[in-house]
Amino acid sequence: MGNHVSDQRISEETQTDHGWMSDEELGIMRGRMPVVYVDAVPVRIDEAGRITHVGLLLRVMPDGTISRAIVGGRVLYGELVRDALVRHIEKDLGTLALPKVPVAPAPFTVAEYFPDPTKTGFHDPRQHAVSLAYIVPIEGICEASDSSLDITWITPDEVLAPAVRAEITGGHDRLIRMALAHAGCVV
Amino acid sequence: MGNHVSDQRISEETQTDHGWMSDEELGIMRGRMPVVYVDAVPVRIDEAGRITHVGLLLRVMPDGTISRAIVGGRVLYGELVRDALVRHIEKDLGTLALPKVPVAPAPFTVAEYFPDPTKTGFHDPRQHAVSLAYIVPIEGICEASDSSLDITWITPDEVLAPAVRAEITGGHDRLIRMALAHAGCVV
Amino acid sequence: MGNHVSDQRISEETQTDHGWMSDEELGIMRGRMPVVYVDAVPVRIDEAGRITHVGLLLRVMPDGTISRAIVGGRVLYGELVRDALVRHIEKDLGTLALPKVPVAPAPFTVAEYFPDPTKTGFHDPRQHAVSLAYIVPIEGICEASDSSLDITWITPDEVLAPAVRAEITGGHDRLIRMALAHAGCVV
Amino acid sequence: MGNHVSDQRISEETQTDHGWMSDEELGIMRGRMPVVYVDAVPVRIDEAGRITHVGLLLRVMPDGTISRAIVGGRVLYGELVRDALVRHIEKDLGTLALPKVPVAPAPFTVAEYFPDPTKTGFHDPRQHAVSLAYIVPIEGICEASDSSLDITWITPDEVLAPAVRAEITGGHDRLIRMALAHAGCVV
Repeated sequence: MGNHVSDQRISEETQTDHGWMSDEELGIMRGRMPVVYVDAVPVRIDEAGRITHVGLLLRVMPDGTISRAIVGGRVLYGELVRDALVRHIEKDLGTLALPKVPVAPAPFTVAEYFPDPTKTGFHDPRQHAVSLAYIVPIEGICEASDSSLDITWITPDEVLAPAVRAEITGGHDRLIRMALAHAGCVV
Repeated sequence: MGNHVSDQRISEETQTDHGWMSDEELGIMRGRMPVVYVDAVPVRIDEAGRITHVGLLLRVMPDGTISRAIVGGRVLYGELVRDALVRHIEKDLGTLALPKVPVAPAPFTVAEYFPDPTKTGFHDPRQHAVSLAYIVPIEGICEASDSSLDITWITPDEVLAPAVRAEITGGHDRLIRMALAHAGCVV
Repeated sequence: MGNHVSDQRISEETQTDHGWMSDEELGIMRGRMPVVYVDAVPVRIDEAGRITHVGLLLRVMPDGTISRAIVGGRVLYGELVRDALVRHIEKDLGTLALPKVPVAPAPFTVAEYFPDPTKTGFHDPRQHAVSLAYIVPIEGICEASDSSLDITWITPDEVLAPAVRAEITGGHDRLIRMALAHAGCVV
Repeated sequence: MGNHVSDQRISEETQTDHGWMSDEELGIMRGRMPVVYVDAVPVRIDEAGRITHVGLLLRVMPDGTISRAIVGGRVLYGELVRDALVRHIEKDLGTLALPKVPVAPAPFTVAEYFPDPTKTGFHDPRQHAVSLAYIVPIEGICEASDSSLDITWITPDEVLAPAVRAEITGGHDRLIRMALAHAGCVV
């Protein structure tokens, strides 16, 4: 499930004093309180705002399979949602991505992740996360990040292909389809 | 600032096993992670969905002044946002309130509360809370709750009166105006 | 395509002076200007706002096949969008339907119907219609209307069944799926 | 009231065959059917999507007073809402404006203009217009257009100044405040 599964605690610790917690502390809190998350569906758009492509992070899993995910991660203590969105996009897509963060703070949907995969269809084995999900047009150049991810751009039609959907885990395929529906694309 | 200021930890502890924490634990976490909140602006509507009245909780403060607030509170571990919304409305307005929770999970806005009142205009001295804010039509009968609050219904025009706004703290006056703007009311 | 296809001009003529036009005049205008429409996806919800059922109008076509559609129709000159929404719901579902019209005037999407079915996927052979689409919870009793329609309630899962989708024309199957995505249902 | 008041029929006639109508025909239709409009609130944003400035068109009226307005105009027969939005922005702000049209077709609000200024607070002496209103970030260079308008950029705080609001007619001051509320700005 992409960023939800990867262990990003160490980089998060170093990025801000306010959000500093040891792995142990974060582990304890994750079992007691829902965690505030942001998800970003990266898209390429044409001059009239139509989505032409959706961006997916790629990663080779230990067993050699490929997993695809969207951008996302935790909101830190003291951090604004907007700033968390920019931080996670830059972390995953690089500092030249030029994301166009939406003007409105309201997400297009709220994805509720649970350790129990049957509860909502959004699954995170580590925690109960309440994620504010945004569609974010990307105008710049994207590059593989430290977490050794690559990014691939596919058309809205390709998102719906069973082979692609099978590679997207944790419910992100559904989140992408909800984003496309919100954007008026055929789904 | 109503529910954001009141100490509701004890009742929250008893309502669900999954959300159980001692006061001490909650206090520690509140200084380390943003807390997931819901805010509900209770409204009365006519048959075509127009807001006729906004509901405000009333409370006499220790110094004898009156404070007004909207409904809201924490989302517990394992709890769905929808269920947290219903729980807080029933707690503050009673079990006969018959709230009409919106079908869409996307809030009309996200209010970010900080101990520093200047950061966003939304203020909570205890914590950094990320609150999903909803407009919730109320069709039933409301009654004063355990927390000895009363509820009063005022028109959208009255919300804007300086005397009323002065009694609404924590930024809730602004949240109500944002709700009215979202609903198409003159603001 | 349900209401978009049916000839409702006569009843519309009699309902309001301001909207009065002869069939000939309306036909001319329909070839010159986009027409303002509303679409309503009728739903049954539980006490926490979750969609349990979607309402579909049923009609036997001249060739004996069954066509399913959602509620909708033209906004008349001088008429508010809210009032048009109530009027069309009462016309199609009866006066005991008790629709809960949303408080916000912003539709969940805008469906653009064209005589050319390939342009957007929303098809109306008679006109270019710009339709504001809303999800409307129905709390009362629905009954067949003058236009000899019946109404059936199906679950969100059933909406996606190919047999059901094949009966919904004009792009309304897609509009229903967009509504379900907006409401956070699995699609 | 800016574009709503100005006579733009001639340029609209020449821009598209499908939308061609004589002045007389358009005048007749405007008295019989609501007209589909788009409104765009032009904004400058920072790298995290926060609105820093709102763009207002300026015009000297026959009596020497200054009127301020936002961008907007009619959707033509056969034209997509997105394309109408781009066309009107380019017409009013120039072809170097580089507007970032939102990915979602749902407007942030619907403004209903009537010849009767008391009906909704949105006033158009010529017609009943149903306008889909969008917030549109502008990244390029704006320049005065044929219609001899200039554009000025003011901060969200300045929008609320009584002197500025007095110059914005037709209800556009209210529409701008609704846009700012939607974007999370203090209003």
